[in-house]
Amino acid sequence: MASIPESARAVIESGALAHLVTINPDGSPQVSCVWVGLDGDEIVSGHLSGAQRKLANVARDPRVVLSIAAEGANAVGMQNYLVVRGRARITEGGAPELLQALARVYVGPDARFPPMSDPPPGFVMHIAVDRLGGHGPWAD
Amino acid sequence: MASIPESARAVIESGALAHLVTINPDGSPQVSCVWVGLDGDEIVSGHLSGAQRKLANVARDPRVVLSIAAEGANAVGMQNYLVVRGRARITEGGAPELLQALARVYVGPDARFPPMSDPPPGFVMHIAVDRLGGHGPWAD
Repeated sequence: MASIPESARAVIESGALAHLVTINPDGSPQVSCVWVGLDGDEIVSGHLSGAQRKLANVARDPRVVLSIAAEGANAVGMQNYLVVRGRARITEGGAPELLQALARVYVGPDARFPPMSDPPPGFVMHIAVDRLGGHGPWAD
Repeated sequence: MASIPESARAVIESGALAHLVTINPDGSPQVSCVWVGLDGDEIVSGHLSGAQRKLANVARDPRVVLSIAAEGANAVGMQNYLVVRGRARITEGGAPELLQALARVYVGPDARFPPMSDPPPGFVMHIAVDRLGGHGPWAD
């Protein structure tokens, strides 16, 4: 597992949507956007429902890619973005607490999330980083 | 091929980076961000170099997914985004002209692109839409 340089950590914690790619049973890509944060050198996301296709995909094939638009651009105006190739695992519980913390970043400091009063424990996806790419200081 | 509703066309032409997913030879996803526009009901992107991995991937397996962050959010603050599942084909030539048109959207009305004085003809990727998803009026 690779450690994550500070420039990439800042993008992961910036509040920009992460485009999460998993692999469907037929080999086609599945993409959905998620809120992400950091737990040490792992990227984490919270999922209230275990019925999400991305969770089933990861249980079958742990290879995932995350892509996040970033601040800044190169000399000709191509915007920076961070691509993370990694391997994901799922653990049970902890989703409401993680989503509440992420909602403060993604929605606003006073955000309340999940919206229901008694949310299910859900699942947390943990992504160990294999390689960083995209355009930006983390890819130089 | 599906036609694209106006709400999704607006996202594709909004100047937000498109996260383009292709499939590597080992079945893992490859992601890079591209500028996109519309040519009728196809989504198009320009590529000066034919040596890009995404082009080789598409030649081998045309299944692609595009994901684009969009304006607006649902009641609990989850930002809208457009996911396009489609099939891509590559044609030769036309990349400088397309990239110049897209640079006006993505960089600014006075942008000059490509940066070199005698760019190669390059390649254009054309994506026929199979299905739209994500969160937003196009996915309701």
